Amino acid sequence: MSSPASSATPNPTAAVLVIGNEILSGRTKDANLPHIAEKLAGIGVRLREARVVPDVEEEIIAALDALRGRYGYVFTTGGIGPTHDDITSACVAKAFGVPLERNAEAVARLERHYGDPSKLNEARLRMANIPAGASLIDNPISAAPGFRIGNVFVMAGVPNIMQAMLDSVLPQLEGGPDLHARTVACELAEGQIAADLGALQDRYADLEIGSYPYFRNGFFGVSLVLRGTDETRVVAATEELAGIVLRLGGTPNVTVGTKG
Amino acid sequence: MSSPASSATPNPTAAVLVIGNEILSGRTKDANLPHIAEKLAGIGVRLREARVVPDVEEEIIAALDALRGRYGYVFTTGGIGPTHDDITSACVAKAFGVPLERNAEAVARLERHYGDPSKLNEARLRMANIPAGASLIDNPISAAPGFRIGNVFVMAGVPNIMQAMLDSVLPQLEGGPDLHARTVACELAEGQIAADLGALQDRYADLEIGSYPYFRNGFFGVSLVLRGTDETRVVAATEELAGIVLRLGGTPNVTVGTKG
Repeated sequence: MSSPASSATPNPTAAVLVIGNEILSGRTKDANLPHIAEKLAGIGVRLREARVVPDVEEEIIAALDALRGRYGYVFTTGGIGPTHDDITSACVAKAFGVPLERNAEAVARLERHYGDPSKLNEARLRMANIPAGASLIDNPISAAPGFRIGNVFVMAGVPNIMQAMLDSVLPQLEGGPDLHARTVACELAEGQIAADLGALQDRYADLEIGSYPYFRNGFFGVSLVLRGTDETRVVAATEELAGIVLRLGGTPNVTVGTKG
Repeated sequence: MSSPASSATPNPTAAVLVIGNEILSGRTKDANLPHIAEKLAGIGVRLREARVVPDVEEEIIAALDALRGRYGYVFTTGGIGPTHDDITSACVAKAFGVPLERNAEAVARLERHYGDPSKLNEARLRMANIPAGASLIDNPISAAPGFRIGNVFVMAGVPNIMQAMLDSVLPQLEGGPDLHARTVACELAEGQIAADLGALQDRYADLEIGSYPYFRNGFFGVSLVLRGTDETRVVAATEELAGIVLRLGGTPNVTVGTKG
């Protein structure tokens, strides 16, 4: 593309790897992906792919290797607890070709957390096994740390722990240009506005224009979301789109951001 | 493995491909994956992987080709509407190396749905473009069909439409042996039961035993889920596990299925 945005600093990219049989069985609904997506967008990092794999060594390693080679950052969730099905740390070590070592600082954190030495049994000490060369990610809730190795950030699956870990690593990331967004919601059907919307996308090839139908409060409608790094262009396209909606007999409801 | 289950009829496998920028931006929370997972488990099909990709042709085709070669069934959601960002059907045609054709039966369904011919504009007619050789999947809600080609099922992203489409294709699928599950919930911490749980998993290598910590109503605890195709083995392992929980000072709460 020869669009204005593509000649500017590109936004760093990221992928999420969700690890766990419970997501694939439908038992547990993943709540981490949308949270990570929003936090990354807030610092100008574009989430480009997500994968969910079971607690199976070869699947975890293959997905990790595919993603870490393609994207700037990879965030994994799940599989770093004390039970036999928590195999993420060992898989990451294998993927990077480094030994899995008992990390002294991680042991010290667990010792402080559990207090009574009899509580820090061998299962819990497994949570201090970290790939050699990794740096720890703080876990202010249950002590057992996540870790970063290369461009991979290994985090817990439990949402409140994952969120605390992500908050502590966000300042370490190199962000990109701000991503600006506007949403134009209206009660038109997608099929009524599709032709004009496609023509608008052609004129604003540097923006990403998405169309999301909804059914709310008994009414059908569509939310049209415009995104890009050049806010002037986003605002100009939004104004044109609001005019299109009016011409087609709709009432445009414009909001800043992607909600609406 | 030389476990009893692995010598029996294996369960067919499946993958889900979620297509759409809105999932990767965090704007929309995917609700389809857990629904598909539960429905497949109900007929003995194991969901083994899920991927989320943006509305980008090469990403969709690459993911589709990777998944359809590895798993028995692939279910895609999203990207089959009337707007410019709905490119799934064209991508599926390219992946299969067949032309994208205007499907007469799909046109007839749209004509019946819209009634007034002036409403069936070119954008809406795009929804009747279907890869050659595909069979249609009914859409009782908004008429525009999904389709099946080879082992790939292409469905809408809007949850109520996706659910209706899935219900109509489930009877076409070859299922596998029933997957039986029990859940043992207790107020122990994962770290207290991890060693015994690992030993139990070793004795029941034909079962899948998962450990999922929770925080509910002000109390921490763990749900231990046992699954397998041999119900006798699942029940036996559940009884042993309940005994382990009692011995460790916990109160086992046993339920049938994966909830609890």
